[in-house]
Amino acid sequence: MNYLFFSFEGPEGAGKTTIVRMLKDYLTEQHVDVVATREPGGIDIAEQIRAIILHPHNERMDARTEALLYAAARRQHLVEKVIPALKEGKIVLCDRFIDSSLAYQGVARSLGIDEILAINAFAVENWMPTLTIYFDIDPALGLARIHENGLREVNRLDLEELAFHERVRDGYMMLLDRFPNRIKKVDATQSVTKVFEDVWALIEPLLRK
Amino acid sequence: MNYLFFSFEGPEGAGKTTIVRMLKDYLTEQHVDVVATREPGGIDIAEQIRAIILHPHNERMDARTEALLYAAARRQHLVEKVIPALKEGKIVLCDRFIDSSLAYQGVARSLGIDEILAINAFAVENWMPTLTIYFDIDPALGLARIHENGLREVNRLDLEELAFHERVRDGYMMLLDRFPNRIKKVDATQSVTKVFEDVWALIEPLLRK
Repeated sequence: MNYLFFSFEGPEGAGKTTIVRMLKDYLTEQHVDVVATREPGGIDIAEQIRAIILHPHNERMDARTEALLYAAARRQHLVEKVIPALKEGKIVLCDRFIDSSLAYQGVARSLGIDEILAINAFAVENWMPTLTIYFDIDPALGLARIHENGLREVNRLDLEELAFHERVRDGYMMLLDRFPNRIKKVDATQSVTKVFEDVWALIEPLLRK
Repeated sequence: MNYLFFSFEGPEGAGKTTIVRMLKDYLTEQHVDVVATREPGGIDIAEQIRAIILHPHNERMDARTEALLYAAARRQHLVEKVIPALKEGKIVLCDRFIDSSLAYQGVARSLGIDEILAINAFAVENWMPTLTIYFDIDPALGLARIHENGLREVNRLDLEELAFHERVRDGYMMLLDRFPNRIKKVDATQSVTKVFEDVWALIEPLLRK
């Protein structure tokens, strides 16, 4: 099946959320049917799974349990929200998808890209993104943006030591090497306008097809 | 690491629970340190996961989501309960383990043995059972035992049509073919005494080693 499914990746503070909103508005103005989402995306079963992952009392959770739960929540969000939209011919913009697990659990938590890919391939089947845009930014700069702008409250992941976020970035770099056709990098340190232009330059040719 | 980890498989009504209790008592009388468990085994995180799987309002759950949740609960139970006991040199008896997922999700729900094996290999790593005993019984007979004996309340799985349980049995047969060294079959239509003798004949040589 032909479909247009775009995922957006990168550290917190890279500006993904802003760009996805701008893209959604821009496409809607052009009367393109578009759905913007992020896991767990209001899908009840996926929200229940996410609640287990994030519950502060569950600090005994093993890293592999966590990875399997993320894959389970991803599967349900995909089946209930992404696939139905794609089947209706809508464009789907997804803030984080499979590559977040590969970078965070596979590389930063050292579980291995291939092992995390195996369980996520089971979850995703053939519904891989058409194109994935990676927002590249020095993690220290990304974190500083979150703290200074007060964009939202700082969460558990933000508080992981900077070294963890450096490893996440290393992970995304490995994924760029491994999936050069699917994943494209954008310099997220630029102005919002310039980042949007770069993202649009990657997406627009696919829309024209 | 050398360890003795026995899992017990088969349909509901095959008598696994009774035999595991008898084995535990028999080994304890002989001053053998033994832990009898079954997933989720009172492990808080695994219980939370199980609650999502079994919640009657979650009827929109996709079969792959369910399989990933079972693997996640298995991982946590393994890490918090089974592995610590094995490391203390205790014998672990586990009522259902990886083969239940392979037979129920892999075969009866048609997700494929290899695919379910992949996500469970991620969950289990190298902690496979030393020996798995499969309690073989015609599913119709197993279900009749549950209903007639009023051993426990009938649950959602019992109510799946008989054809489903026939496929589960087919699944176990495939697993016997595939893992002939690890999995051994016992005729569960025999008297409890005879089933116990057969199980003991399989386990006892491993204890002597």
